[in-house]
Amino acid sequence: MKYQEIAQQIIQHIQADNLPQGTKLPSVSELVKEYGVSKNTILQTLKVLESKGVIYQVQGSGIFVRRKKRKGYITLLENQGFSGDLTYFDVISKVINVSLIPAPEEVANNLYCSQAEEVYRVKRVHSIRGQTLCLEESYYKTSIVPFLSDSIAEGSIFQYLEKGLNINIGFSDKYLSVHKTKGEIAYYLELPENSPMLLLEEIYYTSNGEPFDFTKNYYHYEHSQFFLQS
Amino acid sequence: MKYQEIAQQIIQHIQADNLPQGTKLPSVSELVKEYGVSKNTILQTLKVLESKGVIYQVQGSGIFVRRKKRKGYITLLENQGFSGDLTYFDVISKVINVSLIPAPEEVANNLYCSQAEEVYRVKRVHSIRGQTLCLEESYYKTSIVPFLSDSIAEGSIFQYLEKGLNINIGFSDKYLSVHKTKGEIAYYLELPENSPMLLLEEIYYTSNGEPFDFTKNYYHYEHSQFFLQS
Repeated sequence: MKYQEIAQQIIQHIQADNLPQGTKLPSVSELVKEYGVSKNTILQTLKVLESKGVIYQVQGSGIFVRRKKRKGYITLLENQGFSGDLTYFDVISKVINVSLIPAPEEVANNLYCSQAEEVYRVKRVHSIRGQTLCLEESYYKTSIVPFLSDSIAEGSIFQYLEKGLNINIGFSDKYLSVHKTKGEIAYYLELPENSPMLLLEEIYYTSNGEPFDFTKNYYHYEHSQFFLQS
Repeated sequence: MKYQEIAQQIIQHIQADNLPQGTKLPSVSELVKEYGVSKNTILQTLKVLESKGVIYQVQGSGIFVRRKKRKGYITLLENQGFSGDLTYFDVISKVINVSLIPAPEEVANNLYCSQAEEVYRVKRVHSIRGQTLCLEESYYKTSIVPFLSDSIAEGSIFQYLEKGLNINIGFSDKYLSVHKTKGEIAYYLELPENSPMLLLEEIYYTSNGEPFDFTKNYYHYEHSQFFLQS
């Protein structure tokens, strides 16, 4: 889409020139001229940039650059699954196992299915530059994700869902809480038991509103930090 | 605004009837008839409801109710300051102190001011039903917030900013990380040292894009859980 292309170009311009927060950008009519597109296209571009937290608009005053997030923080609002946000960091994902099991009660509740239904469970450890980032425990409904394997889980599962299975990912619910590490989690995070840990639970829905993925991510407290804008 | 009123009515209807996720709501043209307003007003209403995570729309299929968040979770995306989100819980805020100090380096960096500039520092402990929720350490730029006091800090500071000082709160950046409790923080959270804790740092901006509030909230890991949608 044209407006997305222009949004990408503006982001690259802000990054390349390292424009600080509050830098005034060209007005709507100047952008219309600069890119040779309709006013409507530019308004769509600005909506995208605003929702990404790249700019803010002040009525009667103009369009301005928003602060860059601190380096190394994981964006909490992206709907791209695990590797989407962190690709620039070279995330290494190690598969512990992929298995087909009857849905545990908690999973059935979150995916609105019966406990008799089989789900794929994927356990992986993600690390960045040799540091353990998190232990991931994901459950996928087989009615929507009929096939998963170790080799698929070694790459980006979300890319497989979108490009391989043609699933449109719609929205997600995320729950955060802080706990102490125990047993398996402490083992995979390479932390002593009772260390702090962040639990991020996510429920992903198709654009039709059907939940298909329930994920529990246990984050290493020293190797993970999160960012969000509103 | 009419569209906000209608949004509020739809939310109340969903809550009163306890409509589950996936319940189909009336179509746009039915809502136009039901509320006797323009199609444009209804489209604005739906935009608000969608951004609040109350509904989702499926092209060619309709408008549906989205899952309610789990009870007792704090919404991470509201820009209403501390008490806005949790009013229904009866949050008690105890002021430790309010003082006027030269901006510490970290504060100056986050509020884009010099270290010579004076800022208000507010320390409070928030609790719910007798349980300590968090220790809050907030810094306010005096160029935007020229006056603060203990008695103001006993209530909602954001209400004072919006209604008393006429400040339009625009947007915010939020940073989350997990640490171990130490010294003063452990003391106020009534936790042993080295307990898990969530640190939520927030920078609030006016709608003109000027940062005016830098807040560090230290959350008790057993008494706080967070929710967000995307």
